[in-house]
Amino acid sequence: MQADRKKVMRKLNIAKGQLEGIIRMVEADRYCIDISTQLMAVIAALKAVNRDVLTAHLEHCVLNSLESANEEDKAEKISEVVKVIEKLSK
Amino acid sequence: MQADRKKVMRKLNIAKGQLEGIIRMVEADRYCIDISTQLMAVIAALKAVNRDVLTAHLEHCVLNSLESANEEDKAEKISEVVKVIEKLSK
Amino acid sequence: MQADRKKVMRKLNIAKGQLEGIIRMVEADRYCIDISTQLMAVIAALKAVNRDVLTAHLEHCVLNSLESANEEDKAEKISEVVKVIEKLSK
Amino acid sequence: MQADRKKVMRKLNIAKGQLEGIIRMVEADRYCIDISTQLMAVIAALKAVNRDVLTAHLEHCVLNSLESANEEDKAEKISEVVKVIEKLSK
Repeated sequence: MQADRKKVMRKLNIAKGQLEGIIRMVEADRYCIDISTQLMAVIAALKAVNRDVLTAHLEHCVLNSLESANEEDKAEKISEVVKVIEKLSK
Repeated sequence: MQADRKKVMRKLNIAKGQLEGIIRMVEADRYCIDISTQLMAVIAALKAVNRDVLTAHLEHCVLNSLESANEEDKAEKISEVVKVIEKLSK
Repeated sequence: MQADRKKVMRKLNIAKGQLEGIIRMVEADRYCIDISTQLMAVIAALKAVNRDVLTAHLEHCVLNSLESANEEDKAEKISEVVKVIEKLSK
Repeated sequence: MQADRKKVMRKLNIAKGQLEGIIRMVEADRYCIDISTQLMAVIAALKAVNRDVLTAHLEHCVLNSLESANEEDKAEKISEVVKVIEKLSK
């Protein structure tokens, strides 16, 4: 994930800032709907990071390994992607 | 998808039956919450079919193509999976 | 759901047509990725119907019942909405 | 959200710890699939917090306001819940 690490780190740090903001909102007893709106925003942000991580994985790790690797390794890479898709599509 | 076609067809026909049931519920002016519950059930059923289709695709089509195919074809297969994951993870 | 029934019926019939199209695609052994794309389209369409049904429920049934109903009935209406939100937010 | 604030705060602090762990994983260049698995875990944890916040909102704020409030305020409360459901059901 070399190429995309900086982008991912930046987005994760923004998400962490959002989450700290939500913690302060709960401490300050802010309106539930506003807290929920911020929670949905940070969830959407983390989903976007997950997309970046998985895209980088497929375009680099999986593609490279598939070019060189042995059969077992290929099957394992595919099996990992299957598991990710199973979780995502629930 | 040879191997899994029968299972997928059976599940799709069940989902179609559920959807026809929902149409009858709306016609009969049934309670909204009951209609919504049935809608969520058919959505969950179709998500399960989608998981089956994508798993079969990865375990057969992608794995096979990766063993024989040229570089361009591999990259296209990966690109298709990336697009699926992007849609699923929204 | 009087006011929105026609719209909901029209959308459900379109979704049924999409689903029948998907069944034909599987019968014709069409490419998995194309089948998955259509499945995600019909899932999105049914989610939109569910939003319509729940919005109509809240804006008519819940709002009306809350103006006239007794405490128990109000609490039950709220409890139903809580259950819907629990399912939706998984 | 008085009654549930402690539970929500505890869960948010756990989620923050998970997110900091993910940041360290990215810094340490850990395997993408492991990072993605942790991201999906923290997303699921934040969805659970969102469910708690919305349930508390409905069972306390909405129910109370509906017992005393004027028509406009009721309609606004319902409209807020409609918007939440629209976001959740995408």
